[in-house]
Amino acid sequence: MNKYDKIEKFLVQFLHDEVQKAGFSKVVLGISGGIDSAVVAILAQKAFGPNHFLGLLLPATTSSKASLNDALILCEAFGIVTQTIPIGPLVDTYFSDKEASKLRIGNFSARMRMSVLYDISARENALVLGTGNKSEILLGYGTLFGDLACAINPIGELYKTEIFELAKHLGVPHSILTKAPSADLWEGQSDEEEFGFSYAQIDAVLKAYEDEGKDKTALLQTFNAELIEMTLERIEKNRFKGKLPLIANLKGYK
Amino acid sequence: MNKYDKIEKFLVQFLHDEVQKAGFSKVVLGISGGIDSAVVAILAQKAFGPNHFLGLLLPATTSSKASLNDALILCEAFGIVTQTIPIGPLVDTYFSDKEASKLRIGNFSARMRMSVLYDISARENALVLGTGNKSEILLGYGTLFGDLACAINPIGELYKTEIFELAKHLGVPHSILTKAPSADLWEGQSDEEEFGFSYAQIDAVLKAYEDEGKDKTALLQTFNAELIEMTLERIEKNRFKGKLPLIANLKGYK
Repeated sequence: MNKYDKIEKFLVQFLHDEVQKAGFSKVVLGISGGIDSAVVAILAQKAFGPNHFLGLLLPATTSSKASLNDALILCEAFGIVTQTIPIGPLVDTYFSDKEASKLRIGNFSARMRMSVLYDISARENALVLGTGNKSEILLGYGTLFGDLACAINPIGELYKTEIFELAKHLGVPHSILTKAPSADLWEGQSDEEEFGFSYAQIDAVLKAYEDEGKDKTALLQTFNAELIEMTLERIEKNRFKGKLPLIANLKGYK
Repeated sequence: MNKYDKIEKFLVQFLHDEVQKAGFSKVVLGISGGIDSAVVAILAQKAFGPNHFLGLLLPATTSSKASLNDALILCEAFGIVTQTIPIGPLVDTYFSDKEASKLRIGNFSARMRMSVLYDISARENALVLGTGNKSEILLGYGTLFGDLACAINPIGELYKTEIFELAKHLGVPHSILTKAPSADLWEGQSDEEEFGFSYAQIDAVLKAYEDEGKDKTALLQTFNAELIEMTLERIEKNRFKGKLPLIANLKGYK
């Protein structure tokens, strides 16, 4: 078996075992039309099948129509059962009387998706699967209590460049494989434009920093200084997103 | 200084220091009219004052009118600046075409409050304070990614019975001190009715289990069997709420 055969097999088994251990037999997942949720959707379909896996399509008013269409093509190709619940009415209800940045609207939208996913998971007595990849998680490139919220995440240890390889291996449709990665918080958003660097460049730094334990001085011998700066700054600034709330320790005062 | 003098002083300093360390100078908090958020509101007002602390009143259509009124009395008494944003329109928008249990509606409402709080925290460049007490956190009696979501929680190491003492010490208004504790997810909900036991009874078990490390056999020598059963079952069943998402560990497969 090649590397991605093994990873696929391991992750399908992981999903099956961990959901069972948690006392559930069903999962739900938000499918955006992007590559991360496409990979998790195919893994979930292999682990649970159409009777125990429901894909939720949760388009915002600002979501690209191509994304929704790509999600539908994926689900059709793999026989994934879906329900579509637009979150536009929720977002519009809240912001109708407010001036807000596209970032605020985007983060609120991500939290509306989480809220709908968790509500449907209660209806279905199912667990919510997550789709954050290792690059995103390390950079903190996601909405806390939004798309970062889930019970089980099968792909959180795979870098974005590895997600691409796994996606190709799993047969993710061409239109999803080839489009520019986007958090899709607003129209035309592009991860790599926001970073100023490609995932190939960023992942090389992340691997050296995270897996090989190289510090900034060591990184500077191999990589572009601005790339290192951007990467380490995001890691530092967003570290809180990977932590539980800070609780005051009252030992000694009670 | 008595115990609650010391705790007050420690927590005011804790809030001040930790918010500064995180690079912020302002906080926001959802104030429900219940005792937990009343305590945190007074601590925050003492730590930050009216220019750096905003209280959010986020009533649902089903929230008791007395709760909102109690919240307003508290904020008036302590000079807390507030903004009221009803979440009813969001909840109604989502559930208008759905049959759902009051639990689903309650959990969705808690997540709407979180989403609004985090949106306003972005507008204000502020951190979100949490109000979960130790009894609630151990029992898992709260909505994940709802009222349990926050950046900093000053009261998470205080049992509910201690919150009452601290509230009295801080001068929380009488109407808040004397009402039955309620998650207020639906009208007339009562924590103690749902548990079948009072917080005094439950906290005694929690302290013996958590602080003194007594196991079930030891607990049975002191406490009612049903009380122990209910308490340990909730702890076990809801443990996931205090944990980060489970990520597949791919070491060895890459």
